[in-house]
Amino acid sequence: VTSLAEILAIGDELVHGFAVDTNSAHIARELERLGVEVRRVTVVSDAPGALRAALGEACGRADVVVATGGLGPTEDDRTRAAAAAAGGVELRFDEDCWQGVLAWFARLGRTPPESNRRQAWLPAGARVLENRWGTAPGFCQRIGRAELFALPGVPREMVGMLELHVLPWVAERLGGGAFAFHELRTLGIHEAALGERLADLMAADHEPRVGITAHFGMMTVRIAARGSGTADAQARCAATAAEIRARIADVLAYEGAEPLESIVVRELGRAGATLAVAESCTGGLLAARLTGIAGASAVFREGVVTYHDAAKTQRLGVPPALLAAQGAVSEPVARAMVEGLLERAGAEFGIAITGIAGPDGGSDAKPVGLVWFALGARGRVRTWQRLFSALGREFVRERAVLEALVALRQALVDPGSVSG
Amino acid sequence: VTSLAEILAIGDELVHGFAVDTNSAHIARELERLGVEVRRVTVVSDAPGALRAALGEACGRADVVVATGGLGPTEDDRTRAAAAAAGGVELRFDEDCWQGVLAWFARLGRTPPESNRRQAWLPAGARVLENRWGTAPGFCQRIGRAELFALPGVPREMVGMLELHVLPWVAERLGGGAFAFHELRTLGIHEAALGERLADLMAADHEPRVGITAHFGMMTVRIAARGSGTADAQARCAATAAEIRARIADVLAYEGAEPLESIVVRELGRAGATLAVAESCTGGLLAARLTGIAGASAVFREGVVTYHDAAKTQRLGVPPALLAAQGAVSEPVARAMVEGLLERAGAEFGIAITGIAGPDGGSDAKPVGLVWFALGARGRVRTWQRLFSALGREFVRERAVLEALVALRQALVDPGSVSG
Repeated sequence: VTSLAEILAIGDELVHGFAVDTNSAHIARELERLGVEVRRVTVVSDAPGALRAALGEACGRADVVVATGGLGPTEDDRTRAAAAAAGGVELRFDEDCWQGVLAWFARLGRTPPESNRRQAWLPAGARVLENRWGTAPGFCQRIGRAELFALPGVPREMVGMLELHVLPWVAERLGGGAFAFHELRTLGIHEAALGERLADLMAADHEPRVGITAHFGMMTVRIAARGSGTADAQARCAATAAEIRARIADVLAYEGAEPLESIVVRELGRAGATLAVAESCTGGLLAARLTGIAGASAVFREGVVTYHDAAKTQRLGVPPALLAAQGAVSEPVARAMVEGLLERAGAEFGIAITGIAGPDGGSDAKPVGLVWFALGARGRVRTWQRLFSALGREFVRERAVLEALVALRQALVDPGSVSG
Repeated sequence: VTSLAEILAIGDELVHGFAVDTNSAHIARELERLGVEVRRVTVVSDAPGALRAALGEACGRADVVVATGGLGPTEDDRTRAAAAAAGGVELRFDEDCWQGVLAWFARLGRTPPESNRRQAWLPAGARVLENRWGTAPGFCQRIGRAELFALPGVPREMVGMLELHVLPWVAERLGGGAFAFHELRTLGIHEAALGERLADLMAADHEPRVGITAHFGMMTVRIAARGSGTADAQARCAATAAEIRARIADVLAYEGAEPLESIVVRELGRAGATLAVAESCTGGLLAARLTGIAGASAVFREGVVTYHDAAKTQRLGVPPALLAAQGAVSEPVARAMVEGLLERAGAEFGIAITGIAGPDGGSDAKPVGLVWFALGARGRVRTWQRLFSALGREFVRERAVLEALVALRQALVDPGSVSG
């Protein structure tokens, strides 16, 4: 029998839509790796009644409940009081907990305001969970059939405490069975057509579970395989992956959960090569994605965001006459951009992107969504164009960054793919 | 009596954590503007039993339920069947609905695969909701006390259909009373200290509601005021805003819900001025944020991501001797970066950012989190440094972008703030 988990994200800002809950996705992935099944995620406000009800319901359905948020020092942080009420106990001042808060502030060379004492009032019988990443201590408490873990809402604190406190408990108490996951990513096929190829594998009762998610034109086929243990789950997952791979080989872009930008940075390092990028319509998004990876400085030389035509000439040496004759969004300009970039940057790999992100600036000959790419790899240049669906500025920009990252990965992993 | 709303986000990829639900935040904000209160957001899987239960429970508690996802053409799209089961009716093929799907494909010059017919099987008695932005039609259906609106999960389709179908219905049937919102943003104060200043306003029973959210070091104080109508709600909101403004004037960075980058692009346009940016540790993030705003091309000249020291010299004219003597993260280098940038870009405003995002690269003298800024505005240059908490690479980069945007906004709105 699979153990069940539920997740609660607590906060007025979440339920009323002023912030997006990203914590629950991380928690769900980590819990499911241990073979626990997440059935439901509930986002509730700080209002005492609503919070207590949602906590009680979740603890009545699941074996483990992970809640985030509402542990701060201010008046609207009410998870401690709601958990006490849901468990039918009082709040008690926990001296150990308070010492932990004081120690955190001491490390920063500060003294906490008096209001931080609120954070040390925990439900009676709860066990304090140390927070090494911030001020807000967490706690765990038995309510109904469930073990409730209350963690802070700040993502980096939640991540650390989940790993330190929650996952070991789950592995020991609820473990048994395990899930394995695999992802296959496609470009150039629509969701319905992809779904037809995999329909039998996507039936509600099919094991392993197979699902499709669309994101900026890339489809992710996800396999979730349950097994008696890690090795068994992985074998089931691999068998289904092989079946799917055979059916979608013509549209497969890459596999795995690692972000594309991370693969590119890693492969550049492995090849001892450097990269430079020249962006127009993507406006720095590609550079930002790549430099978000720790260690990018070893392989990323520079980026230029040549938004204005004058910048294309000055920064990349694109001749004004070429821009006038062909327009900024054209094969010759994309080629000139990457050639000028590589000459100036002294990098082995380079990519140039020039297109029309919209909403304005399109024409019959060059509609919104048209993007030219030029990839330079060790002296060879390949150019190509794509006409992305005009589904908004963000879509065209994100889709173009995806195209560039897939092309860079391909050039690094399979150098034969870049031909002059 | 306030009408209650609940939101359901449907999809295995959401509940198992492979995608983040951003739709619900948008829906919550739009519903609450009309005076409806969102009590709960539930994220559920595609599993038929779980989905039917969650739909039924939400429809038993709320006056209106907005569900997203599960309307696609593949096997794992089960919202239609679950809603039929929750409402105790059969699925029926809806010819109007099918004609709508055909018309969408015709506009794209394509013929739908046979599997798209799944999308036209709706619960008996449901009303089809036209989708002008994609293939998946929505529907609405009475279940229990609630009107259920089922919309697609693709954000741009959901946004359009919410406005076209859901908001007019809510305004007509559930309207009466309204909410008004206001946001005040602070930099340079910790959450507990800010909470102490506003404690009385943040009590659970206080009207208007006041809450604090922390995001990359910026605190947002949010006011949600309920009133008998829009004008009344706005007046109550304004009165509380005035009270808060007086208490936090020393740390107030700006006010309002408009993103900073949008304010900067708008104010540049109003001033008839142009902008260029030179980034090191933020790696293109600032340029990407600014160029994400439609119309940025009229004011954004160029960005350079001078990651490698050689790029700082070649692209911005920073003398190699200065880099060697002072290090890349220093006041003279930041100043030289912005001076070189403005000279080359021909822009009235420019900003340079150079710092240590980590996790490596820090030293005792220049720890991770140290960032130097240089702002050039119409011939005057101001430099300053910040030591951000070393809470990870993403935190330092995002916090630095925030600092730069606040400084740019200030220079545009209050030119006296930039002194040589």
